[in-house]
Amino acid sequence: MLSQKYKDMISAPSVIRALAGYAQERGKEIGYENVFDYSLGNPSVPVPEEFNEAIRELTKTLSSSALHGYSPNPGNPDARTQIAESLKKRFGIPYEQKHIFMTSAAASAIAHAVRCVTSPGDEVITFAPYFPEYVPYINQSGAVLKVVPADTESFQINFDAFESMMNPNVQAVLINTPNNPSGVAYSSATLKRLAEFLNAKQKEYGHEIFLISDEPYREIVFQGADAPYVSTFYDNTLSCYSYSKSLSIPGERIGYVAVNPAAKDADLIVPMCVQISRGIGHNCPSSIIQMAAARCAYLTSDLSVYETNMNLLYNKLTELGFTVVKPGGTFYIFPKALEESSEAFCEKAKKYDLILVPGDSFHAKGFFRMAYCIDTEKVERSLPVLEKFVKEEYGR
Amino acid sequence: MLSQKYKDMISAPSVIRALAGYAQERGKEIGYENVFDYSLGNPSVPVPEEFNEAIRELTKTLSSSALHGYSPNPGNPDARTQIAESLKKRFGIPYEQKHIFMTSAAASAIAHAVRCVTSPGDEVITFAPYFPEYVPYINQSGAVLKVVPADTESFQINFDAFESMMNPNVQAVLINTPNNPSGVAYSSATLKRLAEFLNAKQKEYGHEIFLISDEPYREIVFQGADAPYVSTFYDNTLSCYSYSKSLSIPGERIGYVAVNPAAKDADLIVPMCVQISRGIGHNCPSSIIQMAAARCAYLTSDLSVYETNMNLLYNKLTELGFTVVKPGGTFYIFPKALEESSEAFCEKAKKYDLILVPGDSFHAKGFFRMAYCIDTEKVERSLPVLEKFVKEEYGR
Repeated sequence: MLSQKYKDMISAPSVIRALAGYAQERGKEIGYENVFDYSLGNPSVPVPEEFNEAIRELTKTLSSSALHGYSPNPGNPDARTQIAESLKKRFGIPYEQKHIFMTSAAASAIAHAVRCVTSPGDEVITFAPYFPEYVPYINQSGAVLKVVPADTESFQINFDAFESMMNPNVQAVLINTPNNPSGVAYSSATLKRLAEFLNAKQKEYGHEIFLISDEPYREIVFQGADAPYVSTFYDNTLSCYSYSKSLSIPGERIGYVAVNPAAKDADLIVPMCVQISRGIGHNCPSSIIQMAAARCAYLTSDLSVYETNMNLLYNKLTELGFTVVKPGGTFYIFPKALEESSEAFCEKAKKYDLILVPGDSFHAKGFFRMAYCIDTEKVERSLPVLEKFVKEEYGR
Repeated sequence: MLSQKYKDMISAPSVIRALAGYAQERGKEIGYENVFDYSLGNPSVPVPEEFNEAIRELTKTLSSSALHGYSPNPGNPDARTQIAESLKKRFGIPYEQKHIFMTSAAASAIAHAVRCVTSPGDEVITFAPYFPEYVPYINQSGAVLKVVPADTESFQINFDAFESMMNPNVQAVLINTPNNPSGVAYSSATLKRLAEFLNAKQKEYGHEIFLISDEPYREIVFQGADAPYVSTFYDNTLSCYSYSKSLSIPGERIGYVAVNPAAKDADLIVPMCVQISRGIGHNCPSSIIQMAAARCAYLTSDLSVYETNMNLLYNKLTELGFTVVKPGGTFYIFPKALEESSEAFCEKAKKYDLILVPGDSFHAKGFFRMAYCIDTEKVERSLPVLEKFVKEEYGR
């Protein structure tokens, strides 16, 4: 008999996907170049040519079984070693091969991390605004996601609300910095305070509280931003990484969990991830993609366009009187809407072919998200349209 | 706090992996060419060159976003269409794109299929001998795996035992034909009887009973074997396929679920799989691998070596007096051991550098598995060693 649970889920489609679909349909009417589609976080810059070249070379130089044969369960050993070394070099944490577990990008990294450090019924805390897929990611593992309301002044952590929600049933805290949708990076001060708080609570409760750090935007950081590496602040950290944004390869599904070597039972966590894989049908990402990504461990796409776009939008939005926190990274910005209902605001924007996403999807009512992973030329053309929309609809 | 469940699982390593590890270690002492390693089901023939060529061409002809961008959640649309058409052409079932869900090979296909057609606590029945990974595949979905004892005469289905175990709590039946470890393919008569029985039970219980058909060996079928396509016998069939063996690309993790268009709510099943993916961190296999596999939808590696090896082993085993059912496909053979304990039998074989896997791992005591996905030259050299082992240890 078909599962009622998954049958019911079909009928609750994603608002973001629906808006992206609308933008595509509208594009068929007026030309997609005339739709200012800020809906989807799909990287717009090309993959580094070294990645494609690595793929081609691997098909020419490795034997069929070395290239396409089974990877060992935790992933390709060379890839894991290269990733451990690159993280060690950059962040000064003594990662070794045994601390790296290769995954099908960040979604899979989080799926493993949460099962590793929780049991069914345990609570996982995250902070608004947050990526809406955290709900199925966490709840379908058997743990329960609890959301701390946003600090809408800074989009750092709302510690008062967090402290009041903390309880001994919390086994993990899930953060995302630089953040989707706010674009804000957690500062050194925020991460220091978070670590001190969690360390105190670990002592008080007599059990570990793991920090699951979702870091797909780690490499997209703007000038002057204070965006430190999370794991340097707190030992019990599992860093969940994806190459989707840094190498512009979201379709290739490649990333990893990096276990802080100082974490409790650090050497057990990768073997536990292997066991988790058996039950969720994971069993490694593609072998050729693991090898090609590892060869690009020190590379990124040319990510500068995102900062250019951010500055264009940030300047125009502030000029138009929007309340908006300047992003420290990512390719998102999260201004306050000009009326209470951001859904009504985004609906009106559609008349101008501006596709904006209401903040309700991210547990932050009254704000809206713009994903500016689009061509700069289009961002520039959208600015007078944004101005027209604001003047005509809100008299500014 | 680390999950006790997954921590405990680490300490129960796979017998097959342990034997494969032993073979590698022994190879370091005497040269791996002198170890007759029949432990692992790792394809030995190369990938068709067309697959590597497709990969290279894709990196040269498609734009970065078309090649490496996000796939739609059910998979690349062209790949799904090509797979549907190839199945329709070969098996006469009117599959369309909407019936194909791309997965990270068969493990992932089964992970989705079982969640789709069961709810926690439901029973899933499979038949011994069976692939031991079925235990975590099924039990970690929340369903409960029940095993029907083997029909050790033919390795077809033991219908008497099956009928006595059937009950209204059974929501799915999981089969694997051609079978790992027996090498036997279920005959038309077996599948017809299975379908009649399940149809009667569906009527009696008033709910669907889905057939999950695990088919990684579908393309490895030997001359004269009666090895029909399962889904033609029973409407409520989900075919779980992997290219791992047919294209010799197990590391690339690519396969699919094909939903019989006549299944109950057939059009809902792929959308339900999409929802399941969200919770288990799947979100599609690699995009370039999906495209390359679809371009090879009508190809296989040169699989003839497996039949050559099978005949060499089958003839020698029968000559030496072993009780053994002739395989209809795969690259496995499953003879009866020459003493009651197949573990003792396989342990003695190690003295001759013959690496055989005890049947206990497959829920069939007293038998042993040989995975003959190795070079024919090595199979030939192993035959006199097998003879020596049998003569010296068992006086035959």
